Amino acid sequence: MPKKGFEEIRERMLKSAKQGISEAYKSEEYALMQAVNAQIETSRSYNLAYERLSEWYGIYFPEVRMSNPTTLARLVIALNHKGIDDRAIEEAIKDSAKAEEIYKKAQSTIGRKMDMGESRAIVGFANLAISLGASLEELDLYIKEAATRLMPNTTYLTDHMIAAELLSKAGSLERLATMPAGTVQLLGAEKALFKHIKFGSRPPKYGILFKLPDITNAQREIRGRIARVYATKICIALKADYFSKNFIAEKLKKDLDESIKRIKEKPITPKKEQPRQDFKRRNFGKQEGFKGRRRR
Amino acid sequence: MPKKGFEEIRERMLKSAKQGISEAYKSEEYALMQAVNAQIETSRSYNLAYERLSEWYGIYFPEVRMSNPTTLARLVIALNHKGIDDRAIEEAIKDSAKAEEIYKKAQSTIGRKMDMGESRAIVGFANLAISLGASLEELDLYIKEAATRLMPNTTYLTDHMIAAELLSKAGSLERLATMPAGTVQLLGAEKALFKHIKFGSRPPKYGILFKLPDITNAQREIRGRIARVYATKICIALKADYFSKNFIAEKLKKDLDESIKRIKEKPITPKKEQPRQDFKRRNFGKQEGFKGRRRR
Repeated sequence: MPKKGFEEIRERMLKSAKQGISEAYKSEEYALMQAVNAQIETSRSYNLAYERLSEWYGIYFPEVRMSNPTTLARLVIALNHKGIDDRAIEEAIKDSAKAEEIYKKAQSTIGRKMDMGESRAIVGFANLAISLGASLEELDLYIKEAATRLMPNTTYLTDHMIAAELLSKAGSLERLATMPAGTVQLLGAEKALFKHIKFGSRPPKYGILFKLPDITNAQREIRGRIARVYATKICIALKADYFSKNFIAEKLKKDLDESIKRIKEKPITPKKEQPRQDFKRRNFGKQEGFKGRRRR
Repeated sequence: MPKKGFEEIRERMLKSAKQGISEAYKSEEYALMQAVNAQIETSRSYNLAYERLSEWYGIYFPEVRMSNPTTLARLVIALNHKGIDDRAIEEAIKDSAKAEEIYKKAQSTIGRKMDMGESRAIVGFANLAISLGASLEELDLYIKEAATRLMPNTTYLTDHMIAAELLSKAGSLERLATMPAGTVQLLGAEKALFKHIKFGSRPPKYGILFKLPDITNAQREIRGRIARVYATKICIALKADYFSKNFIAEKLKKDLDESIKRIKEKPITPKKEQPRQDFKRRNFGKQEGFKGRRRR
């Protein structure tokens, strides 16, 4: 083949490969997955920053405890080295009764006096905590909007974060929609699942689905069964989202609620007490090799 | 004793306890330790945010790679859904040759087209990455200033981050200044040290001190010895910082450099090849009990 023809074919191949990539990223699900991962990371950073900030601020003002990170950060900014201002406190925490209490405590605090340099450092860090919180809200807004658009049925059945996390774990909507219910049920529980397969520990009952209030708030003994019916309905919803694009979630939700009610009504037979088994790490490929999971 | 006297004593006790706490926090070292911990946390968050952002931006513009997180974030903000603007790119990355290259690539990118909602989400996340970077710099500024003031000798010998990290690991300047050199050498290597004591793995040679360029860049065989001389000199510097408050670091540094030179000049005797031993986790308190570290 002449050189010219070679070059031409190469160019055409490259072009088609590029087109293929463009095509593959056309669906918005990829952006949604990235946003979910960013949200999870940001949320972790936010919690860590809150821990750091409350410990740090504890040396200046140990009497105060705030459970909301952003409120704490706003209080840190209001109560810096410049002195105590009751108006600023009230503005920061937006609760006049609590603000007065804090104002009183601040006047007789046993904490360390803040100097200028320290104040600048801690106020900067508090500002960072506020940015983290704001960023989290922004990402959540996008995830909600995109998940509702891409997976209306699944989002209706669960909520936007759970739907989006399932998608991110699966890697694409197509893959998620063609998974069996048992796999969907255990998405996010990979570690526990492999521990079960390798060492014979108890199998997991749910992964991401544990965040559903219906499961979190249920009795321990029936949680697994509720996760199972949820997973089956989610699978139907996913197929509707990906293939037919009909909105059938209302009916699914009704069926689901009925199934859960039935599970809850059934009397719970208490499990026999089994002695907890110790399982050791096997040395795979060294002495015995892998012989499949230990059955009990 | 009458009730009145009791109350009075109680009050006096409380007051003195409070005073004790105030007294204990008077030294700035506590603020410095908090700042160091915040810095370490923020730096981790910054790196994770950068990873997320470059993966996310990769679906829109896979041709670009930036090694600086803040530059990448600024590019993401400049190149959003509104279209490609060569001036904005140049402003973002401050390198006209590279900016032109990116501009060319951006025009024929095979990435996904960004829509409004996605753009808002990713730009928000990029802004967060920038805040993280700015916060990091701010904290570093404070740490530098405070470490140089509180531990002038140690900071001169090492650098402000290493000095501050040593302080944070030790818990107080007094404790750090009274530590033996071997302990200072291994601060930050607790995990490896306990692994050595429990399971007989190789002992660690350095902890936080590994960040010193003199150790990082040295040959593997002499790193331990350099860490040792560093630790002894740091101990002297710490004592000067805490007790006498003289500035003796210049002389220490000279001695140190000479010692390091001597270590480097000595010919390295190659170690005998020892077969790598496998060490298993012992079952403490089950079969054999702890018999001290395994000697070899």
